[in-house]
Amino acid sequence: MDANKKISQWMNENRSELIELIKTLVREPSVQKNEATIQQLVEEYLLHMDYDVDKWEIGGEDLLSHDAFISPRNSFIGSPNVVGVNKGSDNGKSIVLNGHVDVVPEGDIKDWEADPFSGAYMDGKVYGRGSTDMKGGNAAMLFALKSIYSLQLPTKGDIIFHSVIDEESGGAGTLAAILRGYTADASIIPEPTNMKIFPKQQGSMWFRIYVKGKSAHGGTSYEGTNAIEKCQKVINSLKQLERIRNKRVKDPLFSSLPIPLPINIGVIEGGEWPSSVPDLVKLEGRVGVSPDETIEEVKAEVSQWLKGLAEDDDWFEKHPVQVEWFGARWFPGSIDVEHPLMKMLTNNFTNILGYEPTIAASPWGTDGGLLTTIGQTPSVVFGPGVTNMAHFSNEYVEVDKVLACSKIIACTVYEWVNEDRKK
Amino acid sequence: MDANKKISQWMNENRSELIELIKTLVREPSVQKNEATIQQLVEEYLLHMDYDVDKWEIGGEDLLSHDAFISPRNSFIGSPNVVGVNKGSDNGKSIVLNGHVDVVPEGDIKDWEADPFSGAYMDGKVYGRGSTDMKGGNAAMLFALKSIYSLQLPTKGDIIFHSVIDEESGGAGTLAAILRGYTADASIIPEPTNMKIFPKQQGSMWFRIYVKGKSAHGGTSYEGTNAIEKCQKVINSLKQLERIRNKRVKDPLFSSLPIPLPINIGVIEGGEWPSSVPDLVKLEGRVGVSPDETIEEVKAEVSQWLKGLAEDDDWFEKHPVQVEWFGARWFPGSIDVEHPLMKMLTNNFTNILGYEPTIAASPWGTDGGLLTTIGQTPSVVFGPGVTNMAHFSNEYVEVDKVLACSKIIACTVYEWVNEDRKK
Repeated sequence: MDANKKISQWMNENRSELIELIKTLVREPSVQKNEATIQQLVEEYLLHMDYDVDKWEIGGEDLLSHDAFISPRNSFIGSPNVVGVNKGSDNGKSIVLNGHVDVVPEGDIKDWEADPFSGAYMDGKVYGRGSTDMKGGNAAMLFALKSIYSLQLPTKGDIIFHSVIDEESGGAGTLAAILRGYTADASIIPEPTNMKIFPKQQGSMWFRIYVKGKSAHGGTSYEGTNAIEKCQKVINSLKQLERIRNKRVKDPLFSSLPIPLPINIGVIEGGEWPSSVPDLVKLEGRVGVSPDETIEEVKAEVSQWLKGLAEDDDWFEKHPVQVEWFGARWFPGSIDVEHPLMKMLTNNFTNILGYEPTIAASPWGTDGGLLTTIGQTPSVVFGPGVTNMAHFSNEYVEVDKVLACSKIIACTVYEWVNEDRKK
Repeated sequence: MDANKKISQWMNENRSELIELIKTLVREPSVQKNEATIQQLVEEYLLHMDYDVDKWEIGGEDLLSHDAFISPRNSFIGSPNVVGVNKGSDNGKSIVLNGHVDVVPEGDIKDWEADPFSGAYMDGKVYGRGSTDMKGGNAAMLFALKSIYSLQLPTKGDIIFHSVIDEESGGAGTLAAILRGYTADASIIPEPTNMKIFPKQQGSMWFRIYVKGKSAHGGTSYEGTNAIEKCQKVINSLKQLERIRNKRVKDPLFSSLPIPLPINIGVIEGGEWPSSVPDLVKLEGRVGVSPDETIEEVKAEVSQWLKGLAEDDDWFEKHPVQVEWFGARWFPGSIDVEHPLMKMLTNNFTNILGYEPTIAASPWGTDGGLLTTIGQTPSVVFGPGVTNMAHFSNEYVEVDKVLACSKIIACTVYEWVNEDRKK
């Protein structure tokens, strides 16, 4: 029996262990600053498989002053990264399997039908915050490694497992792992792609725009300039920029996305008193960054574009909008569609599931951008969760998908690390 | 020497006392819930002129359950109303002089060049929060009564002085004074009109509108419906309603106002996360109410109008905006332009200042709406402050205007109360 069959059989026989693993991970409320316990569990899981485990609280000048560092935190005490390494027996290719353990907050508890961290298993699904983003993916990876370990399959190249913090705020955990030297010849990140394979990932970053007005009493509103009304022009202008930017996107991998690079207005806030003309409005949003452009290019384009507001409206000549880049930022990422890892992943997908995978570009950023750009580790994003479930109430992941993903990852890792590094 | 000349002369001689009075009133930081000390000062001033003084903490079922009651407060402990009555000697016409002692908060202290409650006198002006709105006017009234008292001028009708709280939040103080029986044949309210005479006052009320959207991840924003973008349609629709409502205004008293009945969008708030499509936006604003329409009519018109949003956009068919009327509300008010009090006031203005006053409609509401509608007391608004100074930093009032206003009020009160009630 070949290795792939052995892996499939072992996984089918141990399906209940996978369910328990997902449940265990989901039950950890590992929101930002609360990642210690889940990292302890991951560490133990890796140690049981005889991995060399490196657990450390990230920080230090090389991280905090790095150009790519971004986080609302300046201290990570109590929030360790965990990396497990299985040294290869020979000169095989190395691989990073990367997953973040942090989850976004559960939001309004009233929107949940059950405890957000219940980890309840029902009708083939495990429920809870983080199940889809991305503990289902993490379980798929750990279970894949467990199958290789249990079946005592040979591994010539290094397997490096990243269990990182802080992805949801911009990737400080992965950046720290890269700076500590944990890079490889390629990487797989099982973020929720709904089993699609994403060789390209959209980057993104957050902007904040202040739109000015002039105060007046609401009864003589014509004596003022309403910042909320001026803001409409700014929003329209951003929508126009979105159209222009998306017309430029020719990559067929983006063709299935109605708007490959959205500019999203996420937050608006302005004015203090119903009877006053507001003199300031704050907009916050996210702009998508194509794998073919840099963060800096997009910043420059947005700023330049908004200067054009003055052409249609003198107000903006004297009161230009103020643009800030703040908070989170994800680098775009890209791996060649013909990259050998892509081929293996695609073949294993087809063999295991009986149909060909969808290859596309992701509509959101992942730590793959950092791995590719900073870590020189070409990355593929492929996972069992569903994007439109991420960050929402009653989040769940389907066990069948986790299992299939785990099989595909295991077979691919096995194949990859047993290829010689230098041909 | 006739009474009018005596009044003018007495006031000129006692100008410094007026300045001290304005300064004293402005130095009291009588923001909401902090009105006790200033009311004590007013009480003493009235007692010195032998007025019967009624001082009481407003409240009780008749007030709190009254249709016209509106206030963010449900207890007024520590915030008394003060009413002083000078009983007439015969059957003369009665008059209410109404002024509120509450002031809006000082706002950002950094915007002030000096202490907001300094009451500093400089270049003919007294500076401080409330100087223009409306302690200058209150001082003008008290000083007018002081002149009549000091000159021992006869008064056949009752003079009723309202020193009320809570005007800035909708008029609970004046409503309480009305319900306690302190009404009259007419009333003067020296809110800041910049010496214009306002026989009509615009009413106004606050609305809150919730605009719904549908959440999605910002990277796949096309899967959601952006409530901030939908909100633009609501704002445009309100601006259109403003145009339609103002086309209907034919009253020549409103002709000097570019937009007699503004609909002001004062506050906007929506979304929580830059990378998410927001599913809810809250708008708050103020709609002006003409003296020719009722509060209820305007509520119905706005609600009906917003239902029309569904005609242009199906989204609003399934997700209609939600309209609430909340917070403050000022009844519109109106007195006949030919009313005898208007004639007296106009004549006295012309005699004292040597030119004819501007007669117009106010762009904002006052307690005059309550006095007219609920108290059956026709009211004129006429005062020394300047509208566009009200509620702003570095607020001031000009002493010369306060003095002129005081003379005009004193002469008018003297003339009015000495007319027989039943001719």
